[in-house]
Amino acid sequence: MIRLNSHPSGRHFLQIPGPTNVPDRVLRAMDYPTIDHRGPEFQQLGKKVLADIRKVFQTEQPVVIYPASGTGAWEAALVNTLSPGDKVLMYETGHFASLWKKMADKLGLNPEFIVGDWRHGVDAAAVGARLADDRNHEIKAVCVVHNETSTGVTSDVAAVRRAIDAANHPALLLVDTISSLGSVDYRHDEWGVDVTVSGSQKGLMLPPGISFNAVSQKAIAASAKAKLPKAFWGWDEILESNKNGFWPYTPATNLLYGLSEACDMLLEEGLPNVFARHQRHAAATRACVTAWGLEILCQNPAEYSPALTAVVMPDGHSADTFRKTVLENFNMSLGQGLSKLSGKVFRIGHLGDFNDLTLMGTLAGVEMGLALAGVPHRSGGVLAAMESLRNAAASQPALRAA
Amino acid sequence: MIRLNSHPSGRHFLQIPGPTNVPDRVLRAMDYPTIDHRGPEFQQLGKKVLADIRKVFQTEQPVVIYPASGTGAWEAALVNTLSPGDKVLMYETGHFASLWKKMADKLGLNPEFIVGDWRHGVDAAAVGARLADDRNHEIKAVCVVHNETSTGVTSDVAAVRRAIDAANHPALLLVDTISSLGSVDYRHDEWGVDVTVSGSQKGLMLPPGISFNAVSQKAIAASAKAKLPKAFWGWDEILESNKNGFWPYTPATNLLYGLSEACDMLLEEGLPNVFARHQRHAAATRACVTAWGLEILCQNPAEYSPALTAVVMPDGHSADTFRKTVLENFNMSLGQGLSKLSGKVFRIGHLGDFNDLTLMGTLAGVEMGLALAGVPHRSGGVLAAMESLRNAAASQPALRAA
Amino acid sequence: MIRLNSHPSGRHFLQIPGPTNVPDRVLRAMDYPTIDHRGPEFQQLGKKVLADIRKVFQTEQPVVIYPASGTGAWEAALVNTLSPGDKVLMYETGHFASLWKKMADKLGLNPEFIVGDWRHGVDAAAVGARLADDRNHEIKAVCVVHNETSTGVTSDVAAVRRAIDAANHPALLLVDTISSLGSVDYRHDEWGVDVTVSGSQKGLMLPPGISFNAVSQKAIAASAKAKLPKAFWGWDEILESNKNGFWPYTPATNLLYGLSEACDMLLEEGLPNVFARHQRHAAATRACVTAWGLEILCQNPAEYSPALTAVVMPDGHSADTFRKTVLENFNMSLGQGLSKLSGKVFRIGHLGDFNDLTLMGTLAGVEMGLALAGVPHRSGGVLAAMESLRNAAASQPALRAA
Amino acid sequence: MIRLNSHPSGRHFLQIPGPTNVPDRVLRAMDYPTIDHRGPEFQQLGKKVLADIRKVFQTEQPVVIYPASGTGAWEAALVNTLSPGDKVLMYETGHFASLWKKMADKLGLNPEFIVGDWRHGVDAAAVGARLADDRNHEIKAVCVVHNETSTGVTSDVAAVRRAIDAANHPALLLVDTISSLGSVDYRHDEWGVDVTVSGSQKGLMLPPGISFNAVSQKAIAASAKAKLPKAFWGWDEILESNKNGFWPYTPATNLLYGLSEACDMLLEEGLPNVFARHQRHAAATRACVTAWGLEILCQNPAEYSPALTAVVMPDGHSADTFRKTVLENFNMSLGQGLSKLSGKVFRIGHLGDFNDLTLMGTLAGVEMGLALAGVPHRSGGVLAAMESLRNAAASQPALRAA
Repeated sequence: MIRLNSHPSGRHFLQIPGPTNVPDRVLRAMDYPTIDHRGPEFQQLGKKVLADIRKVFQTEQPVVIYPASGTGAWEAALVNTLSPGDKVLMYETGHFASLWKKMADKLGLNPEFIVGDWRHGVDAAAVGARLADDRNHEIKAVCVVHNETSTGVTSDVAAVRRAIDAANHPALLLVDTISSLGSVDYRHDEWGVDVTVSGSQKGLMLPPGISFNAVSQKAIAASAKAKLPKAFWGWDEILESNKNGFWPYTPATNLLYGLSEACDMLLEEGLPNVFARHQRHAAATRACVTAWGLEILCQNPAEYSPALTAVVMPDGHSADTFRKTVLENFNMSLGQGLSKLSGKVFRIGHLGDFNDLTLMGTLAGVEMGLALAGVPHRSGGVLAAMESLRNAAASQPALRAA
Repeated sequence: MIRLNSHPSGRHFLQIPGPTNVPDRVLRAMDYPTIDHRGPEFQQLGKKVLADIRKVFQTEQPVVIYPASGTGAWEAALVNTLSPGDKVLMYETGHFASLWKKMADKLGLNPEFIVGDWRHGVDAAAVGARLADDRNHEIKAVCVVHNETSTGVTSDVAAVRRAIDAANHPALLLVDTISSLGSVDYRHDEWGVDVTVSGSQKGLMLPPGISFNAVSQKAIAASAKAKLPKAFWGWDEILESNKNGFWPYTPATNLLYGLSEACDMLLEEGLPNVFARHQRHAAATRACVTAWGLEILCQNPAEYSPALTAVVMPDGHSADTFRKTVLENFNMSLGQGLSKLSGKVFRIGHLGDFNDLTLMGTLAGVEMGLALAGVPHRSGGVLAAMESLRNAAASQPALRAA
Repeated sequence: MIRLNSHPSGRHFLQIPGPTNVPDRVLRAMDYPTIDHRGPEFQQLGKKVLADIRKVFQTEQPVVIYPASGTGAWEAALVNTLSPGDKVLMYETGHFASLWKKMADKLGLNPEFIVGDWRHGVDAAAVGARLADDRNHEIKAVCVVHNETSTGVTSDVAAVRRAIDAANHPALLLVDTISSLGSVDYRHDEWGVDVTVSGSQKGLMLPPGISFNAVSQKAIAASAKAKLPKAFWGWDEILESNKNGFWPYTPATNLLYGLSEACDMLLEEGLPNVFARHQRHAAATRACVTAWGLEILCQNPAEYSPALTAVVMPDGHSADTFRKTVLENFNMSLGQGLSKLSGKVFRIGHLGDFNDLTLMGTLAGVEMGLALAGVPHRSGGVLAAMESLRNAAASQPALRAA
Repeated sequence: MIRLNSHPSGRHFLQIPGPTNVPDRVLRAMDYPTIDHRGPEFQQLGKKVLADIRKVFQTEQPVVIYPASGTGAWEAALVNTLSPGDKVLMYETGHFASLWKKMADKLGLNPEFIVGDWRHGVDAAAVGARLADDRNHEIKAVCVVHNETSTGVTSDVAAVRRAIDAANHPALLLVDTISSLGSVDYRHDEWGVDVTVSGSQKGLMLPPGISFNAVSQKAIAASAKAKLPKAFWGWDEILESNKNGFWPYTPATNLLYGLSEACDMLLEEGLPNVFARHQRHAAATRACVTAWGLEILCQNPAEYSPALTAVVMPDGHSADTFRKTVLENFNMSLGQGLSKLSGKVFRIGHLGDFNDLTLMGTLAGVEMGLALAGVPHRSGGVLAAMESLRNAAASQPALRAA
């Protein structure tokens, strides 16, 4: 087998904002022989994961699971609900919002982009204003990214919902939660989202390879009329087959084993605890970054991401050189700056299967790397993070049950 | 974790024609922590699997690997090469050929189906005649299934190539090898195929979840002009990114670990040996079926599949009742009859990670099941299979190196 | 990693009478990070396995678990209960009984061997007669092997108990169940056994590495006076530490994970069902051997082992040459003849994690091997085995729960 | 399966001084089906591990591998070389030296203990003086612990060798390296050790369950005359069987798979690099402890252990309460104080499969725990550790090969 960790000893710190560290429970669950995807045991598995995943999306509506990675689920959301030339309102929160917009272009839609500065989330008022302007209801869908992985900014989806409602506009609301689901509180039903797109390799703690569309009844109704060509992504046959716990074509069985285990883990911990844990680690990370005297890319504290923190590199220093220093010396992968942020930021992933001490290892690695790479900073950021975590520990009963 | 084998003891016999039994080496390779898909170690992995998989396709041209199951690769082949309304000549070899045709319809193509009886492979002469007739070259592509998983019939793709050439027709040749690649001799370059579609869960011995398009230069040229909307499936960005061992979006990393290991296994055994092994097991299976006095669905011995054997159920007996008897009593999954063959045939998969004794367990299970289910047959088929395997063993040096 | 299966494809058939095929559930359980053997989580594990293993021994008395293989547990049974020069009555059922006797010699005991022919089990009457003769009660212990792995003969331990009682003799009863526990009905308490010795790698379906002493109160009392030097094997500190779920020195943690899972499997299936399954497979194997016209080593049908069948090689044929043929051609390991049976018998293991179709693969491999190696036999033994298994299936509700 | 990590998320930090964190490569290697321990594939494995392990002991003499945990290897060293009543000189470096002495008592030897204060290593001069005094050469063996796991003190074994030689004394030299082998430079041949005892679960990065005796020719000669009863532990049959790569009784096959992989890892990294890595982590740990203002148990800097650091708890504070705080709040296991050190020290394991960032997570966890538990200390120890690691990184080429 190809050797995958060139460091001689110890576990790699995979602190990119996804794929995240896959827990042993999930890896072991996936390492089970593949079964007949048309047999009774698969059926039991199928029904279980279809039920479990709804809880994670906080929905009682169907969730379509694709044997395809997250980018595919973006495409699925568009081709199931829209027709060639449809106008779609999208919001430029960062690199991934831009990629989704580019995809809409490629698929023959007519996306309109509300320009953003990559340091803020969606301005719901701007969305509302544009919709109010759209008297003829030419806009068929509003597409936003809940947690922009390229910037570490989380948008207020409930506010977008309210803005659409206030404008009395019939557009569908499509939301990308690829890097938030299972890490950040997200409520498909309560927030009236029509299609929620997600993937396996972030908060769900799975390897990449499966992805999701949680769909509203309104979205399903739209899909009956949508005219973009669709076959593999088509919801109709999948939803029909899912009624019995099956799929119309071969599902990614072993990833579904992993999904079953991952949902068990999230639901055993309890979603509110999962979200609080991510908030705790994000707060400690920001305390650390601030103590270093470095700048957090996200400019609105209300929009700080619980899943990752993007850090602005001081002028004259390359984030990529710094990341290479960290990788080579400390066996840790950090997230790179993407497209216009290339070389200008690095991103610390603190989502998925994670705990306080792994976070401290992570932040110590960043601090040592800053020093080694000669990046100006105040040392001792880790102490601020420790204080933050320690206070959190002190203010709650021990994390562990007696 | 959900319990996946309701039998109390012993390994399940997964003798459907795919997904196949995943070898321990592959399961263990996949059970390795996910790595950064943009880092140097991934790059090494990416370059290796991209090189290895070409050998398996017997091609020196690019192979696109999708983080999606096989059905997706069908769609990819079509949307990359064709434009709305394009005429496509397809051949009805069975259920999967019919599904591919249905997909072409859904995607807005204009497929023309040469009707078949589901007991024979592609009639290359009929393809040639139809193309010769197509003076204006309205037919843009010929689509055939190499090994029809629903019937156990393998078509002669080289003959189809010759027929196209004889007709001097510019149509692209698109071939589905989902259930033949890695089990049946298949030569992408030598046979002049333009797009070969395949999947992971059959001869490649992986769980389902990744799939392939091997592409010719002619296909790539066609893709530049093809007008079906495409984004996720688009070859261009993937081929560009692959040059450095990367993918434009998150690949199915852990399945790629498995692919690396599976290619190692196939290439260590040697493709000619792999193909001969499948022929040996198929011959033993047919000897057994014939001795039972049952009918093989495939009617042309030259087209017998090395990967699976579909057996016709005697009138008045349900293949599904029989399969249920086998599953409940002997912990073995057999393949069902699909669509118009439903209940009328059962399919024995003998492909992938397999050996003589597992085949004998399989055939003994079928023979005992026939008796238990009261299906008329002559007992002792297993003896014919043993004779076949024994003769094969006697006529060759021991399989095992000193 | 070293490559462990030189055959290119398919699973190895490990049909020696132990180590047996380790089920995936057990392998996966063992593949979990080692934990602190003095922490609260280990304590929970320790208590569980100590409770579970008693059920498997059918005892309510303590079971000592050693981080050592089965041979060590033989030594433990002797050094905990006996003093230098103590007379011990042992019974020559075969190779392993002889090895145990040799160990007693080495440890400074004075073993007396009742000679046997390696084709029968313990003659309880002979044991009784010898004890009756021992007026001064010089014999301190009677040692017998429940299931003699070298011959496939199972002795009647309850009868030995009755013989000791009938002789009114105070000797301890020490029984080796290394190849019977978890495969053959064995009742530590009901049969009044003082020390039951066992190991992990047979009916318990674990890799080798842990072993057991189930101990009676009488044995514990004896251990207080026994004078053979003992430290590692000493029961006292282990029993004391076990009260809290711990061990006095580092236990074989990952094998205990496997033990926990293996006990779950046996208890889920239900011991009576486990024993019946082994009887079913043994009966089918004997039907097969008989149909081949070959001789079963065990001469008393009441003593046929449910765990393995030793087959006598026709004169002039080497069992080892035959086994080599089978290994090289069919990727199956059979048990060799040991010491005086070397080359004269081969042994078919049908114990542990096993099912009907794996048995049929096994027997087909033996039959094909006999033919390839030119060993005289009647072909078609496998049909007799299939008839036996089919009848068993027909006479019971389907093995699988609705 | 029993749940083994009661914390909801993230990996447990197993920072006791053994068992250590088992690397994924080793866990995966062990998770491979058990093979026939008398077959040709096992033979290949046996020969490989017997060759590899010698390199780790830095010896060209035989190494006996037991399917038993480390305590057993202590017993083996004694029973193979000594006779009842033999005088043995042992040195009280701490808890484990005391346990070994207790074992010698139990086995009927006559151990003489040179008293120590549990804060220093072996005083070679004292050993030499005692031997010089022993004119009649009644002392048959000198037993020392290389790295005393209970105190974090490493003794100078070469100096002990020189002292024996200087005294012209024929006593055998027996050394326990259970917590040093594979972590601390140890030279069986160069230092003229007669029996080196070791175990799997520390520097060898395996789960507990196998153990070792590396033996000199002098020790083998002694074993021919030694009269303590021995069977399971007897070197003679094992050494004989090992010549062909086999064992006289069933070996712990799956742990040998792990051993093979672990040796590959150590030898790939290079033993000098492995030792330097442990020194680096130990130095950083001590820098941290010193910065906290806490006392290191070991009083002689020349004897600081590279494998673990024992920290003295300030008066009035319980090390066990502190450790419980750390376990419950930060999911980390630290080593407890043993016997007379109970509650008075805690031990930080920094051996085995380990890296800089995991060490930083470890030390951050200790520092946060000290604060939470109200233990007086100066905060910021982690900064001293980071400085130490950073300087080490700066003074060497990047750890990672281009």
